[in-house]
This record gives sequence, structure tokens and C-alpha cells, in this order.
Amino acid sequence: MLRASKELALTEQPRMSILQNCSFTLQFFNLDKIIRCFFTRENHQEQLHCISWREQTAGQLTSCQGEDNQSLMVCVCVCVCTTDLLPALGGEDVTRGFLQELLHILLGYICKSSQRSSKVLDFHHPHQLKEGLEGFSLDLPDQPETLEQILVDCRDTLKYGVKTAHPRFFNQLSSGLDLIGLAGEWLTSTANTNMFTYEVSPVFILMEEILLRKMQSIVGWSEDEGDGIFCPGGTISNLYSILVARYHFYPEVKTKGMAALPQLVLFTSEHGHYSVKKSAAVLGIGSENVVVVKCDERWVQRAQTPSVTLLQGLAPFYVNATAGTTVYGAFDPLIAIAEICHRHTLWMHVDAAWGGGLLMSKRHRMKLQGIERACSVTWNPHKMMAVPLQCSVILVKKKGLLQECNQQGAEYLFQMDKPYDVSYDTGDKSIQCGRHVDAFKLWLMWKAKGSEGFGSQVNKCLENAEYLYDQLRRRTDFELVLSSKPEHSNVCFWYIPPSLRNVPPGPDRNSRLHQVAPQIKARMMETGTVLIGYQPLGSKVNFFRCVFSNPATQQEDIDFLLEEIARLGSDL
Amino acid sequence: MLRASKELALTEQPRMSILQNCSFTLQFFNLDKIIRCFFTRENHQEQLHCISWREQTAGQLTSCQGEDNQSLMVCVCVCVCTTDLLPALGGEDVTRGFLQELLHILLGYICKSSQRSSKVLDFHHPHQLKEGLEGFSLDLPDQPETLEQILVDCRDTLKYGVKTAHPRFFNQLSSGLDLIGLAGEWLTSTANTNMFTYEVSPVFILMEEILLRKMQSIVGWSEDEGDGIFCPGGTISNLYSILVARYHFYPEVKTKGMAALPQLVLFTSEHGHYSVKKSAAVLGIGSENVVVVKCDERWVQRAQTPSVTLLQGLAPFYVNATAGTTVYGAFDPLIAIAEICHRHTLWMHVDAAWGGGLLMSKRHRMKLQGIERACSVTWNPHKMMAVPLQCSVILVKKKGLLQECNQQGAEYLFQMDKPYDVSYDTGDKSIQCGRHVDAFKLWLMWKAKGSEGFGSQVNKCLENAEYLYDQLRRRTDFELVLSSKPEHSNVCFWYIPPSLRNVPPGPDRNSRLHQVAPQIKARMMETGTVLIGYQPLGSKVNFFRCVFSNPATQQEDIDFLLEEIARLGSDL
Repeated sequence: MLRASKELALTEQPRMSILQNCSFTLQFFNLDKIIRCFFTRENHQEQLHCISWREQTAGQLTSCQGEDNQSLMVCVCVCVCTTDLLPALGGEDVTRGFLQELLHILLGYICKSSQRSSKVLDFHHPHQLKEGLEGFSLDLPDQPETLEQILVDCRDTLKYGVKTAHPRFFNQLSSGLDLIGLAGEWLTSTANTNMFTYEVSPVFILMEEILLRKMQSIVGWSEDEGDGIFCPGGTISNLYSILVARYHFYPEVKTKGMAALPQLVLFTSEHGHYSVKKSAAVLGIGSENVVVVKCDERWVQRAQTPSVTLLQGLAPFYVNATAGTTVYGAFDPLIAIAEICHRHTLWMHVDAAWGGGLLMSKRHRMKLQGIERACSVTWNPHKMMAVPLQCSVILVKKKGLLQECNQQGAEYLFQMDKPYDVSYDTGDKSIQCGRHVDAFKLWLMWKAKGSEGFGSQVNKCLENAEYLYDQLRRRTDFELVLSSKPEHSNVCFWYIPPSLRNVPPGPDRNSRLHQVAPQIKARMMETGTVLIGYQPLGSKVNFFRCVFSNPATQQEDIDFLLEEIARLGSDL
Repeated sequence: MLRASKELALTEQPRMSILQNCSFTLQFFNLDKIIRCFFTRENHQEQLHCISWREQTAGQLTSCQGEDNQSLMVCVCVCVCTTDLLPALGGEDVTRGFLQELLHILLGYICKSSQRSSKVLDFHHPHQLKEGLEGFSLDLPDQPETLEQILVDCRDTLKYGVKTAHPRFFNQLSSGLDLIGLAGEWLTSTANTNMFTYEVSPVFILMEEILLRKMQSIVGWSEDEGDGIFCPGGTISNLYSILVARYHFYPEVKTKGMAALPQLVLFTSEHGHYSVKKSAAVLGIGSENVVVVKCDERWVQRAQTPSVTLLQGLAPFYVNATAGTTVYGAFDPLIAIAEICHRHTLWMHVDAAWGGGLLMSKRHRMKLQGIERACSVTWNPHKMMAVPLQCSVILVKKKGLLQECNQQGAEYLFQMDKPYDVSYDTGDKSIQCGRHVDAFKLWLMWKAKGSEGFGSQVNKCLENAEYLYDQLRRRTDFELVLSSKPEHSNVCFWYIPPSLRNVPPGPDRNSRLHQVAPQIKARMMETGTVLIGYQPLGSKVNFFRCVFSNPATQQEDIDFLLEEIARLGSDL
């Protein structure tokens, strides 16, 4: 009569003897682990009797309301819960079992994500997910759930998410799942430490230093130049660049604030990332004091702009040049900008968040020629180098500036009388106090690929872009946004649905074409077969932007993308 | 004669036939995976001949310099390397094998970290680690390493790190390793996505919203109040609070900058976290415009301060009250501060980065009475709630303020014509663009523990603090820094070495006592048995600060700590 429910797996079998009809004595070996017993009729879901073990003083349950001679099943829910895991006494086995089961789930997801036959996403609206699909409740309980349920929650979380590692995920600059990077993240979270002092992160601090040194030398700075830090994303890296530039020219700003300074002005191009404006707002400079330089589709034409503004009596101090713009993947002419900055004593920052990866490729690094003249560089390995999120770096040419700019000398954290070289305590050169270890996964990937492996990876992404460009040129149902060969891995294009193919250019065609990408994208999300982003830009109506940073993507996926867009838009 | 090296495990056996003395023909089934063959004399480590497979055009190696009839061993290094992992064709098995092996390493580390017999750290100076201990090279190669070597690197990284989960790690406000939180991090990095849009993070975005909602209600805000966001650390959370406060009073700052504003002034206590000053520097307010209110050891006495400053014609706008100071764990009197803020129309921020966890405990939450009147709250679940790093939250009472303050409306990311409710795209309310998923691990832990589980965890840490306090009161070789019972889990104390026990209070004793903690700490790092921090504060010379946030810590560890300090300092 005894039937163990699957939740019993992690404990010993309870023993039950029938004393009289519907009255049982249950003996358990792990009494403290049982939170709930219930009886059901065989093959029935309903619970005839449910009792919390904690309410029982003895192991005898007497009030089950089953019928005479009916086959009854006793289900015992064993509370293998979070308190059974380490550091609980004897928690090793439960911990091993739990993490092993988790690995099984994660491996299943990883394998599925790499299968072309699986969906990129299974879209649901916010209200649908909030209502609790198939029992997947997002609500936060007062009482603990069992580990069994936690694993179910993990499965469900992955099920309703988006597979960013799928070969047909083209939606974001960050995509793919590098397994060495993943291993790096798993180890990082297992070590669970903080980058602020050498004391608690000796190995990670050194790895960060070695990576920064390497990246500085790849940028082209000499041995005696260069500083930097890993940041939580490219926007923070760009914010750092303006912060240190301001401090470099006006060190009094740190204590006196902007009130002590003339009206600062900085420059970026209209295709530069919006983080420059955002940072200007945060830093108290004001977003209107960011001069947005008009540019053509690819090249910034800013040769005269700073000098013009100088005439107006403002205080320009900083130019942001972009190496790899977000939409077009264009590279600003760094040498020309360096000349201007040199002439006017302006801080030259290169936002290579997206384009920095090309420095790893012998074939493509010339696109960033002049970057060695920058005073600071943003470079996000989590984009083109496919390092798991987050992994962004700000490099600053002038040594010691980060520390001077940001230190507040909190003695309770950064004691000078420690028994080691305290220049390795990085916490006083960052804005943050506690700081996540973002360096290790990149270090591990560098070990596993070597510089050359990163180079090949970047080359392959740019080959994919060229392949897509070639396909688009051949087809009549698509139109390229830019006619020239892509510089980076961005390729922008319109799908021209049948109804628009014979409509002459003009406002009518434009306003109808503007609707096409959003409609196709909506259908794409419904079908879940592929994912790509779109946006308008300047006078250009909504167009698709395909970007390649996912090492999983092959030419067949690019063919599929175009076929799928054409299929989804065939009736538009 | 053929002996396979252990690296062969992942490939098929090579076959070798002896053609003549010391000349072999090797046949491999997976030619492309072999990077290196070498011959050694049996039981000898040196390589007699080493050849890279890539240099070979055929499978015949002829130049081995072994002696006649000597037993030779051929070692074949199989390059099961990163390119064999998924997304490589057929990479599933290698991926499974690799991650399984990684799990084995991580589990070993986790179990070891929980053993009291293992060291907390194995200290080495920066130069020692850089030189490459026992072959552990930190250098970044041009050529790839094998997966075997990557796993060795992982082992070494953990070996030379600090076990922050060890029951005797008392060094930091963040400690311990919650295994559910760890599972959450592993899943997060496997999903490898970005919090900026619902499109790519549907589930995580909703979990963040639900967590924020829950935390707001725990703070005591009503249903129609409250906004917030997960941040990379408490300093950034505090920075957000000043940023939105400034925008709330002076919205023109966003576009015009600080030049359009009067001279802002803000308040914090001398025991408040240094991030308030740091943020003022970053935001262009200037660190000198932070009025640091003098306070006694536990309570801020700031009742009159804001009004005094008002008289000087400056523009005070913000008060930072601390709930749980870094060193003493003291709580500012929130109700009194709320009154002042109300009277002078000042923004009240509560930095509960460290103390926020106490809100989860019915027994201790009264220490934060008045927090519901705050305009914003910083709360770091990665501290007292032992969530893995990073997990910090800024809560803002006024809805929509974060979005208004930070939005730049980048159309290429935050299109309004998406097929779902775009109010779920959070990217325009954060300073960051891309943002790591920090919410999931907290969500999963909340499921696993329930609110009550967090409450018990917090209670236990505070019980540990009380236990330590009681022990210290009993002993004559230790002196408490504060005589009253700890409010939070911080306990501060001096060890009085034998040579100082009969020295009367005064400058001489103080200057000698100031040396004691650093000396003991240095020895502690050498022996690696326990780790605790020290610092001076105000007029008080170096003292130890013990903090409890690690659920692994038991009373026996506290006993050990005191005995170990006494042992290490017995000759001082």
C-alpha cells in the first residue's frame, strides 16, 4: 500500500503499517525533514488528509477519511529545502545532488539553445506571465519552497526566457554563450568576492591588472602609460571618461563642484551612443552642453566644430569619438579627431564599446587607427568578444588619474598599514565601493582562445556580415540602408513587401515602409523562430539592423533570416 | 610500449608501431585535435622530443633521440579546446564533460570552504603570484590552451583566493555562500541576457518588478507609491538617490547642468558611508558641499544642522540617514530626521545598504522605524541577506522620477511601436544601458527561504553578535569599543596584549595599541585560519570590527576567533 511520491528521492523510505482501517503508523528515519504527509486515493490527485509533521508530536496519523478497504496512497513531501544545503551539518550530499540536478537543467538549456530546431523565444505578454503560466508563479512566499520546487522554478524561468545564445538571435550587440566565459562566471559566483581590496581578491585583482595592461598595449599605449578599471557596462565606462577628463582639466571640481568651473562643453557625433548625453546629465554638466556633431552615414565631419564653439566663450574639454556606432557600426576618423583634440587641448575619448573587439583582429584593427592617441577608451569585451555580461573596460592613458579623481580615503576599508603593497587595493579608484569580479571570465577566455582565437572569432563575425551584405545586394525584395560594404558586423536593411515594390519613393512609401519592420518583428516574436532588432534613424524610416557577435551563427542562419522575414512579410 | 597520457581521455587511442629504433609511426583518428606529441623515457618527466602536430604533414615522427631498447612513453596532448565546445558541431559531449568536470571542481571548493579544518586563505604577495606559483601563470597567451589546462587554471584560481564562505571569514559585510543564490547566478549567466528591455528579459524584468514591489511594501510604502531599480552596488544606489533628489527639486539640471542651480548642499553623518561624498564629487556638486554632521558613537545629533545652514544662503536639498553604519552598525534616528526633512522640504534618503536586511526580521525591524517616510532607500541584499554579489537596490518613493530623470529616449533601443507594453522596458530609467540581471538570485532565494527564512537568517546573525559581545564583556584581554549591546551585527573591540594590560590610558598606550590590530591581522593572513578587519575611527586607534552576515558561522567560530587573536597577539 505504501507508495512513495517522487519527492521522497532524497530521503529514506518511510515505513508504514496498517493498524486499522485508515489509521496508520508511519516511521520516518529523518523526522526533521518531513513537513507534510498526505493520503490520497490511488490515482487521485485530491488529498484526503494532509498534516504537517511539525504539528505532530508522534509518528501516528489517525484521522484519514478513506473508505473501507480502499487502496490508499500515502504521499510524503520531504522538505529537502535550503536549510538542508551547506553550510548545514552533513549538507554535502544534498548540495551535490542539488547542484548536479541544476547542472542537468542548465546543460539541457545550453544544448537546446544551440539547436536550430528550437525556438529563440516563446513570447508571452507581461500580464500572462504575471498570472502564472502552467503553475509558474512569480510571487514571493512567506514560507520556504522545497528544493524540488526551486528546480522547477529554474526550469520555468529558462523556458519563458529568450535564448540569446541561439544561432538565430541577432537582436543585440551582446549575444551567444561562450562556455569558457560561462565557466568563468560560475567560478566567479562560487568564489563570491569583491574587487575592492587585494586582501579579499588577490588573484582576481592581479588578473584585472594583467588584462588592463594587455588591452592597453593592444590599444597601442606604451609601457609607462595606462590605467583602467572594469565597469558595470559601457555607459558607466563612458561616464568615467568624462569624469576623469573633467577632473584632469579642473581638479577643483571634485571638492567645489561645477560651480567653480566655466561652462563646460563636450562633443559627440549624432550617431554616438546616448550614454554621452546621459553622463553629462548625471555629472551635472547638462545634456544641452553636449554638442552633437552632424555627420553623414559613416564618417563624422567635425573638423571645424570645436574651434567654432571656442569662439563663443564656452569651455570645450572633451570629444567622444565612436569606434563602431550602435546602429551602423561606423568608425569615426580617429586620426583627424586626434589632430583636432591636440590642437585645442581637448580630451579625446574613443567609445570602442562595440568596435574595440576589432583590435583583436589583424585584418580589421586598422579601422581603429589613431586610437593610440586617445586619452581614454571604452571597450566592452561583452559585445564583440562574446564575453558573458557584464564585462566592460575603461582605459585611461594618464596613470593615477582614476585614483586621484575618485579617492575619498575611507580608512575603514583602505588602511595603509596592511602587510602587503596596498597599491593593489583598487577600491578607491573606482566610483563603486563593492565591485563584482568581471575580469575572471575574460581572463579565462583569453587563456582558452589566445589572442589569436579572439581574432578568428571577430573575423568570422565580419565574414557573416559580408555574406549578409552580399545576399541583400542580390535580392530585389530587400534594400540596403547603406550601399557600401559594412565596416563592422552591422548590416542595415529594409524588407520591401510586395505591396510596396512598385510604389515610387516619397512620403507615402516612407510612411508605409515605416510600419513594415514593427509588424514583421511582432510576428517574429510570436513565431519565435528568429530575433532581430529594428529602429528608425534620422530621416530613415524603421529598418532592420542585423549584428553578428554570436559565434554560433552560420551562413545557413543568415539565409534563414532573410527567408523568414520575407515569409512573415509576404502579405504586407 | 604505448602509454596514453591522461589528456587522452577525451579522444580515441592513438596507435603506434615501432618501425625502427626510436622512429615511430603514429596513427590518430582525430588528427585535427592533436596539437602536441612528445616522447619521454618511462618514469621521466623530461621531453625527449616534442613536435606540434600542425607542423607535421604526415603522421610519421622519426627523430626521437631515445636509447637502444629503452622503454619509451609517448604522450599525446589532445587539444580538446574551446573550439570543440558548443556551438561546435557535435560539441555536446565535450561541453557536458567540461562542465561536469568544472562542477566537480566547484563542488570540491564549496565543500572545502565549509570545513573548519581548511584555511580561510593561503596568502601570497602580489609579486609571488605574478611570478607564477607552481606553474600557475597569469599571463595571457597568443595561442589557445587546452580545456584540461583551463580546468587546472580554475583550480589554481580558487586555490590562491580567499574563501569568503568559510565560517571564520569575518572580514567583510558580504560573506557566506548561499547555494540557492549561487544556483541563481549560474542560471543568470547561462541565460546571459540584459535587463534593458522586456523583449530580451521578459521573466527577469517581471521578477525585478515583483521584488521591488515587495521590498517597497516591507519598507512601508503604500501600493501607489514606489519605484526602483537594481544597481551594481550600494555606492551607485546612493548616487542614484542624490541624482533623483537633485532632479526632483531642480529638473532643469538634466539639460542645463549645475550652472543653472544655486549652490547645493547635502547632509550626512560622520559615520555615513563615504559614497555620499564620492557621489557628490561625481555629480558635480563637490565633496565640500557635503555637510558632515558630527555625531556620537551611535546616534546622529543633527536636529539643528539643516536650519543653520539655510541661514547661510545655500540650498540644502538632501539628507542621508544611515541605517546600519559600516563600522559600528549604528542606526540614525529616522523619525527625528524625517521631521527635519519635512520641516525644511529636504529629500530624506536612508542608506540601509547594510541595515536593510533587518527589515526582514520581526524582532529587529523596529530599529528602522521611520524608514517609511524616506523619499529613497538603498538596500543591499548582498550584505545582510547573504545574496551573492552584486545585488543592491535603490528604492524611490515617487513614481516615474527615475525614468524622467534618466531617460534620453534612444529610439534605436526603446522603440515605442513594439508589440507589447513598453513600460516594461527599464533601460531608460537606469543610468546604465546594458544591465546585468541581479534580480533572479534574490527572487530564487526568496522562493527557497520565504520572507520568514530571511528573518531567521538575520536573527541568527544578530544572535552571533550578541554572543560575541557577551564573550568580550567576560574577558579581560579584550576591550569593547562601545559599551552598549550591538544594534546590528557589528561588534568592535581591541585586543589588549600582555605588555599593555597594566599601562594606564593615555597617548603612549594609544599609540602602542594602534599597532596591535595590524600586527595580528598580518599574522592572521599568514596563518590563514581566520579573517577579520580592523580600522581606526575618529579619535579611536585601530580596533577590530567583527561583522556577522555569514549563515555558516556558529558560536564555536566566535570562540575560535577570540582564542586565535589572543594566540597571535600573546607576545605583543
